[in-house]
Amino acid sequence: MQFYEDLVVGSSDRFGAYPVTREEVIAFASKYDPQPFHLDDAAAAQTHFGRLSASGWHTCAMVMAMLVERHRKHDHQGLGSPGVDDLRWLHPVYPGDTLSVEVELLEKRRSATKPDRGIFRSATRVFNQHGVVVMSMTSRAMVRTRDPEGRD
Amino acid sequence: MQFYEDLVVGSSDRFGAYPVTREEVIAFASKYDPQPFHLDDAAAAQTHFGRLSASGWHTCAMVMAMLVERHRKHDHQGLGSPGVDDLRWLHPVYPGDTLSVEVELLEKRRSATKPDRGIFRSATRVFNQHGVVVMSMTSRAMVRTRDPEGRD
Repeated sequence: MQFYEDLVVGSSDRFGAYPVTREEVIAFASKYDPQPFHLDDAAAAQTHFGRLSASGWHTCAMVMAMLVERHRKHDHQGLGSPGVDDLRWLHPVYPGDTLSVEVELLEKRRSATKPDRGIFRSATRVFNQHGVVVMSMTSRAMVRTRDPEGRD
Repeated sequence: MQFYEDLVVGSSDRFGAYPVTREEVIAFASKYDPQPFHLDDAAAAQTHFGRLSASGWHTCAMVMAMLVERHRKHDHQGLGSPGVDDLRWLHPVYPGDTLSVEVELLEKRRSATKPDRGIFRSATRVFNQHGVVVMSMTSRAMVRTRDPEGRD
């Protein structure tokens, strides 16, 4: 099981291979982001996207799926996230792309008020199969401490 | 049609009534965020969430659905978003909640290099049916100009 104490500041990890399918792009966009350029090639061709591309929120969701899969492998004792900073959609995500993720642990600290948990901040970059960074963000997340009496 | 020129800095708008269902919470989490507290009441009861709650990314997606519906009513000439700042999940979103959105237009400017578009920044707050702010963010978005030769 991966607790707060097991997280190493400065470490980074690259993982994931999420295939972006046309069906899933259209299904997500139809429900949550039905802007024409996320639904239809002809409409997308009239914008800077050029062709059908995934909703940015869909990209976030696909990234989360890869992160949770990684956490499950480590039996990571996560407790959710208070939020994300500097979320940037840098390049369109197209059907046929395969996404991967690089996460670098920037810092961690124990909760001042809740000794059962710590908080860490990490930088996430999302790549397509050409090595182009399609999205980046800095996120915060909470994780259980193995030893609530511990000191860093 | 709503173009760049029609956006009024300082204006705000409240809208939406998105019913959060248990089925949708579990469906989204199963695919994109299968952490136990987003899938199962018993697992959630052991965390600060207390009971089953929606993935933060699902909340973002539901908010986007309300924003796009609003944009469609205005025939808003949107061109996508470069990103979001200060995304915060402030309070759990539970099945049975009904979400609404308040958007305030903070600033706008014409693109320095692409006269067919402008960019605006807005503050979004998301409420549940009790008036509790469950999420907030500051987002940027692009929109077509009616008159590419125009000056503000």
